[in-house]
Amino acid sequence: MKVEALRLVISSARKFINMGSLTRLWNLVKNFHPAVLADIMEHLIARERLILINTLYERDKEKAAEVLSELDPEDAVTILENLPIDQIADIMQITPPDDVAPILELLPEEMKDAVLTAMAAKPTEEVMELLDHEQETAGRIMSPNFYALKESTNVSDAITAMQLEGDVESAFYLYAVNDQDHLRGVVSLRQLLFSRPNTPLKDIMTKDVISVQTETDQEEVARQVADYNLVAIPVVDSEHKLVGVVTVDDIIDVIDKEATEDMYKMVSLDTTDRIQDSPFTSIKKRLPFLLFSLLTASVSPFVVKHFQGTIQEFVTLAVFMPLVAALGGIAGNQTIAIMVREIAIGQTEWLSARKALLKELLVGIGNGLVIGIIVGAASYALYGNLYLGMVVGVAVIINLFVAALIGSLIPFFLKLLKLDPALGSVNLLTMFTDSIGLLTFLGLATFFLAYLK
Amino acid sequence: MKVEALRLVISSARKFINMGSLTRLWNLVKNFHPAVLADIMEHLIARERLILINTLYERDKEKAAEVLSELDPEDAVTILENLPIDQIADIMQITPPDDVAPILELLPEEMKDAVLTAMAAKPTEEVMELLDHEQETAGRIMSPNFYALKESTNVSDAITAMQLEGDVESAFYLYAVNDQDHLRGVVSLRQLLFSRPNTPLKDIMTKDVISVQTETDQEEVARQVADYNLVAIPVVDSEHKLVGVVTVDDIIDVIDKEATEDMYKMVSLDTTDRIQDSPFTSIKKRLPFLLFSLLTASVSPFVVKHFQGTIQEFVTLAVFMPLVAALGGIAGNQTIAIMVREIAIGQTEWLSARKALLKELLVGIGNGLVIGIIVGAASYALYGNLYLGMVVGVAVIINLFVAALIGSLIPFFLKLLKLDPALGSVNLLTMFTDSIGLLTFLGLATFFLAYLK
Repeated sequence: MKVEALRLVISSARKFINMGSLTRLWNLVKNFHPAVLADIMEHLIARERLILINTLYERDKEKAAEVLSELDPEDAVTILENLPIDQIADIMQITPPDDVAPILELLPEEMKDAVLTAMAAKPTEEVMELLDHEQETAGRIMSPNFYALKESTNVSDAITAMQLEGDVESAFYLYAVNDQDHLRGVVSLRQLLFSRPNTPLKDIMTKDVISVQTETDQEEVARQVADYNLVAIPVVDSEHKLVGVVTVDDIIDVIDKEATEDMYKMVSLDTTDRIQDSPFTSIKKRLPFLLFSLLTASVSPFVVKHFQGTIQEFVTLAVFMPLVAALGGIAGNQTIAIMVREIAIGQTEWLSARKALLKELLVGIGNGLVIGIIVGAASYALYGNLYLGMVVGVAVIINLFVAALIGSLIPFFLKLLKLDPALGSVNLLTMFTDSIGLLTFLGLATFFLAYLK
Repeated sequence: MKVEALRLVISSARKFINMGSLTRLWNLVKNFHPAVLADIMEHLIARERLILINTLYERDKEKAAEVLSELDPEDAVTILENLPIDQIADIMQITPPDDVAPILELLPEEMKDAVLTAMAAKPTEEVMELLDHEQETAGRIMSPNFYALKESTNVSDAITAMQLEGDVESAFYLYAVNDQDHLRGVVSLRQLLFSRPNTPLKDIMTKDVISVQTETDQEEVARQVADYNLVAIPVVDSEHKLVGVVTVDDIIDVIDKEATEDMYKMVSLDTTDRIQDSPFTSIKKRLPFLLFSLLTASVSPFVVKHFQGTIQEFVTLAVFMPLVAALGGIAGNQTIAIMVREIAIGQTEWLSARKALLKELLVGIGNGLVIGIIVGAASYALYGNLYLGMVVGVAVIINLFVAALIGSLIPFFLKLLKLDPALGSVNLLTMFTDSIGLLTFLGLATFFLAYLK
C-alpha cells in the first residue's frame, strides 16, 4: 500500500476507534491483507491497538490470529498481555505453532502456562515441542506441519492422502520417508502434477535432499536455503527422522533480523531497539551500551594526559589530535564492516582468515601511505614546519595500519570468545585507534619536540 | 559442506589442476551441487578457475552454466572474459536469462555484443528485453519463464499445457490471464493438484494477486515478498500485462545485498568491496571514500585551532577532547544505525519521521544527562575542580543531544537529496559531533577559563 493511502487509512481507523464506531472500523479494514493490518497496528498507540484487535477477534478470529502472526513477537505480546487468558488461548490455537512459540515465551511465565493449559491438546503439544528446542535453532523456527508420505506410496494415493490432510500453508514439497520415518527424498508438487498416477514416489523423488538438524543455528539454516535456492528445508532429529520444515518466509525474517543485528551490534546497540519504542524504553536499552562505550572511550584521555607537557610546549599538536584519531577510526570501521558482513554471509571462515588479515594489512599500508602523505604535506604547507608535517603524516600512516590490524582481528577475536563477531566492535576499535593513534602522534612529537617548536 | 571437508576438497582440486589430472578433477567435483562448486571456485586463483570451468564445460555444459549462475556476476565475468566468444555464448544460452543479464552487462561493450550475436535468437531476445529495464528494478531481475494460461482453461488442460511447456525451474504458481494477457489471478500448484479436472482456473484462482511493475525498485519488490510471505511475485508492464516473475531466491540475494550495502554505505565503503578482492583493487575502491573522510575529518581541527589559546592556558582540556568527541560519535552512530535499518526495512516512511526525530531527541537528552553527570562527576573527582567537572559534563550532555539531532536528520536529509540514506552517514555525523562537541567544550572552557585554572 502506498504511503499516502496508508496514512489515510490509519487516520480514519484512529477516528473510528476514538468515536467507538467499531462497525465502520471493521468495514474499513476487513479486506486488508494481514500484513497491511500489522503495518497499521504498528502506527497505533496501545489503547487503539487493543480496540482494533478486539474488533477483529469478534468478527473474524482467523484474521486476528493472522495479524498477530505478522507482527513482531515483541509487539504481539504487548497487545495480548491485555486480553483475558481464554481469548489469548482461543487466538493462539488457530495460529501456526511456529508463530505461537516466540510469542508465548515472551509472556510472563504464569500467563504462558495458563494459556498453554487453556489451549486445545494438539496445538499445545506442538508448541511445547518447539519450545523444547534452543532459541534461534531450526527446531525452534520450524513448522511441524508438512506433507510426508512413505516412499512406496504412488502418486495418485499421495494426492488423495494430501487432500485428506487438508491445505498445509506454504507447502511446495512432499517429503518421502521410509518405514522408520527417516527422510529419504523430496518431490516437488510440480513433479507430482507431471507424473503418472501409478508411479511410486521413490521413482520420482530427488534422493539427495538438503536438510538441517533440529539444533542447527538459524543463520546456518538461512545460509543453506540461500545457497541452494530452496523455498523450504526439511528438519530432521538426531535419528534422521523428519520432524519439521523451515519455509523461506521465515528464512527471510531470519536474514533481515540478522542483518539488522550485525549493524546494531557493530555500533553497540541492543538488537531489540526499535524506532517505535518509547523514549524511556530506548534510553534503558542504550544506557548499558553507552556505559560500556564510556569505558572504551576513557582509555585515550589517559594517553593524552601522559603527554600534557608536550602539548603545553607546542599547543598546535592539539589541533591535529582529532584528525589523527578520526582517520584511524574511519579506516578501521571499513575493515570491520567488511569482516563482519563477510563472516555473516559465510564468505569468511577460519579457512581464509589469515589471507584476509594479510590483505587488510596491505590495504592499510597502501591507503595509509596515500592519506598520510597528503595530510603530512597539507600540514607542512599550512604551518611551514617540515617536522610537523612528518610527525603528523607518519602518525596517520601508522594509525591506518593499526586500524587495519585491529579491525581485522576484533571480529575473529570476538568469535574466538564465542561472542558475536560484530558485538561492540566499533567501540573496541575506536578505543585502540584513538589510543594508539594519539600515542604514536604525541610520542613522535615528544621525540622531535626540539624541531617542532 | 563442513569447513574441514571443503578445505580438503579445495586442496585436492588445486593439486589435480596443477598436476593437469583433469579426469581426477572431474571425478572429484562432478557430484557437487553448483552452489558448492561456486564456493570452491571462490577459493581458487584466476588460472585455476579457468581450468576448472573448462573441465566442467567439456564434460557437462549445464553444470558449467549452473556454477556461473551461482557466482557473483563480478566473479563470473572475471572467468568468462578469458574464454572464446563462442564458448561464452554457448554457456550463456543455456543459463537462465535473469542470470545472463547481470553478467553480460559487466563485460566490455564489444564482447557483450559479440556474445549476444553468437547466442541463439530466443535467449538473446529474452536477455535483451531484461537489459532494457533499469538496473535494480523488477524488470531487470525477473525471469521471463513462468506458467501462464487463460483463466478459462480448466485444470486438466492446464496440467497438460504445463507438461508440454516442460519444467520451469522454481515455478510454484500458475498465473491466469485474460484474452489481453492481463494478469487476473494466481493458482498454486497445490490447488491445481487438489481440484477437479474440469474446473476452470477462474473458479479456483486467487483474484487479489499482489504484483509489481517492471520499473518497481528491487528493494520494494523484496519488501512486498517479505511482507506477504510469497515465494514468487508476478511482474506486469504498464498495461498490466504479465511479463515475468521474480522468485524468492532472487529476493534473498537482494535482501542480503541491500543489508550489506546499508552497512558499507554507512561506513563509507564501496558496495562492491569484497574480502576476495586483491589488495590493490581494495585500495583503489577505498581511497576515494577515505579522501572524502579526510575532508569531513578536517573540519574539527579548525575548531580546535580557534581555541589554541585556551588550551595553552589550561592544557588539561586536551585530555578531555577525545572523550567528548568519542561519546558524541558513539551515540550518533546508534541513532544512525536505527534510522538506516528502519528506513531500509520500511518501518519508517516520512509518515513517522517527525515522531522518530522527537523520540531520538528525548533519548539523546536522557542518555546525555546520565552519561554527562557521570563524566562530570568523575572529572571533578579526578581533578578536584568543580568547574572542570561542570564544563566537561555539560559539553557531553550537549554533544549527545547534537548527536541525536544530527544522527536522525542525516539519513532523511540524504534521502531528500535522492541519495542513499546510509551513504557516508557515519562520516558526516562524526564531522558534526567532533566539531560541535569540541566547539561546545572548548567554548565553555574559554568562558569559564578563570575558574578552571
